[in-house]
Amino acid sequence: MKVITEDPANAETPLDVQRGIITPNDLFFMRNRFSFPEIEAPAWRLSVAGLVEQPVSLSYDDVLSMPSRSFPATLECAGNGRSGMDPTPEGEPWEYGAVSTAEWTGVPLHLVLEAAGLSEGVTAIVAEGRDSGVVSESRGEEPFARALPLDKALHPDTLLAYTMNGEPLPVTHGFPVRLLVPGWYGMASVKWLTSLRAIKGTFDGFFQIDRYIMREQGSDGPPRPVTEMGVRSIITTPRSGAAAHPGTHLVRGYAWSGAAPVTGIEVSTDGGNTWEHAEWTSGQARYAWRSWEFQWTADTPGPVEIQSRARDAAGTEQPKHSNWNDLGYCNNGIQTVQVTVIQ
Amino acid sequence: MKVITEDPANAETPLDVQRGIITPNDLFFMRNRFSFPEIEAPAWRLSVAGLVEQPVSLSYDDVLSMPSRSFPATLECAGNGRSGMDPTPEGEPWEYGAVSTAEWTGVPLHLVLEAAGLSEGVTAIVAEGRDSGVVSESRGEEPFARALPLDKALHPDTLLAYTMNGEPLPVTHGFPVRLLVPGWYGMASVKWLTSLRAIKGTFDGFFQIDRYIMREQGSDGPPRPVTEMGVRSIITTPRSGAAAHPGTHLVRGYAWSGAAPVTGIEVSTDGGNTWEHAEWTSGQARYAWRSWEFQWTADTPGPVEIQSRARDAAGTEQPKHSNWNDLGYCNNGIQTVQVTVIQ
Repeated sequence: MKVITEDPANAETPLDVQRGIITPNDLFFMRNRFSFPEIEAPAWRLSVAGLVEQPVSLSYDDVLSMPSRSFPATLECAGNGRSGMDPTPEGEPWEYGAVSTAEWTGVPLHLVLEAAGLSEGVTAIVAEGRDSGVVSESRGEEPFARALPLDKALHPDTLLAYTMNGEPLPVTHGFPVRLLVPGWYGMASVKWLTSLRAIKGTFDGFFQIDRYIMREQGSDGPPRPVTEMGVRSIITTPRSGAAAHPGTHLVRGYAWSGAAPVTGIEVSTDGGNTWEHAEWTSGQARYAWRSWEFQWTADTPGPVEIQSRARDAAGTEQPKHSNWNDLGYCNNGIQTVQVTVIQ
Repeated sequence: MKVITEDPANAETPLDVQRGIITPNDLFFMRNRFSFPEIEAPAWRLSVAGLVEQPVSLSYDDVLSMPSRSFPATLECAGNGRSGMDPTPEGEPWEYGAVSTAEWTGVPLHLVLEAAGLSEGVTAIVAEGRDSGVVSESRGEEPFARALPLDKALHPDTLLAYTMNGEPLPVTHGFPVRLLVPGWYGMASVKWLTSLRAIKGTFDGFFQIDRYIMREQGSDGPPRPVTEMGVRSIITTPRSGAAAHPGTHLVRGYAWSGAAPVTGIEVSTDGGNTWEHAEWTSGQARYAWRSWEFQWTADTPGPVEIQSRARDAAGTEQPKHSNWNDLGYCNNGIQTVQVTVIQ
């Protein structure tokens, strides 16, 4: 993996060796604010409280014995591709590897919320992880915590996830239980989950109001919260800077969208002037990326710009450029891979 | 894993901890005739010869640079559940764990056969692995080799597979390249593949004519070759012999079929007199098993027989009993799990 920081652990998936849709657990990208908390399963409890009729406390075995569902889902860091923005915003300088896919198994969150009984007027569920640290001089220490709007919290595919690719969650990915909010950027899928709190109104946690908000250039309105992953494609082969001899080469990549399955993928090898259809090499899935390939015939020696462009079933096309914002989120603009054809 | 024999390695997947459809590589069942051959990727070649216009020899890099596809597929040993047959036939005494699922990536086999150019009249492709040993006193040493009928060899989903759950094939599962014949029992998916040979007529390898044939009780005809996996379901929780207190318990299991996706799953808790629908907990997939759950309410103390019954999209229902055959293959009969309800 490409390590960005050692502790807290932040590292990118080596996408040039990624094949198929499943990322092995030990190559899944890591994005952490704090050091890993180590939790022993028998000692762990999940508290469900706040504006509920009957607070609930669940053990790991309680979670494992509840109805479950399993599906593959792609998680992408909201800052993935930040280093491709111009000018580069502050923050971890992610290239394109802060995105990975696993099959997750877990308990639909709504079953647990219904067991506790949400009070009238609840608008969000605050999910808190065991990981914490000093977030700023004025605020001091805070856990990683995020408020999930009620409609997404009650969606049957929002899970208390406990397995990842058929194995118990690794410590590095939230053992024993994490939220899995499919379709949303990764910040919503709170790891090492210990508390769910039903609230009315707003939540003022640091990672809710100081981070994961979009202050867009040229916009006067209030900052928008970061939520659903934008439609996006990336090129994993060839790498930028590569040389290619004349002849046929496979261009490979992935595409995904939080709003809907991706259904269209095109490639340009002339810097975006003309586009041709690429081939999907994996099936359609609601929440998972798809792999694609394109047969590119290199001919005249010289520089070539290779680009890919995805479209989802909701009709949204990947933009040429995303909106620049000072925290560098949601860069789903078209990526350009520079290749030189040599004799 | 439950080890059946150490060398050659034969071991069952621990299905009681399996969740979701993906089996981690190190828990994937192993069924081998001989010791693992160790192959270095740079030294490996795949020979494509026999009745072809132009024999071809491919390197590992050649395979990796060809068009690919990826999908999850279930592999089941033809002898899975042999120990549940009465009387128990000879052979490895598999219980129910000789079945697992991975996402595979590989090159459609037909692309390689087309590159070599099949001669007129070819009926099968003999696939040979690097693993070999003495198969009988009269025959001496033979490699593991199997003939695949041409129509299945040319099917776009029959692959030269080189990744398993996003990782290069483990040595234990055929590194660097194996056949992946989705929908068929595992014997067709030849591991450590080194040679493909186009033939006319029949192939008389030991594992073609002495093994993986069905000599059915009460049948006068010639033995039938073992091919497609039968429609089947298994129960992974509870285990036979378990005790349960009165109350609600989740029954969990898997279902699959080689011929078509599984679409129906029912559970009986009264020894097969009445059946109720269970819930799928994973999506529909062409070649992969699906997980299911059933809420069982235990009441009166005493013994309970729990059974599951699958149906596929082709309309085939899992049989109460499979046809007994002397080599103990294709036991897709309904499994009975004995549980005792205690106060």
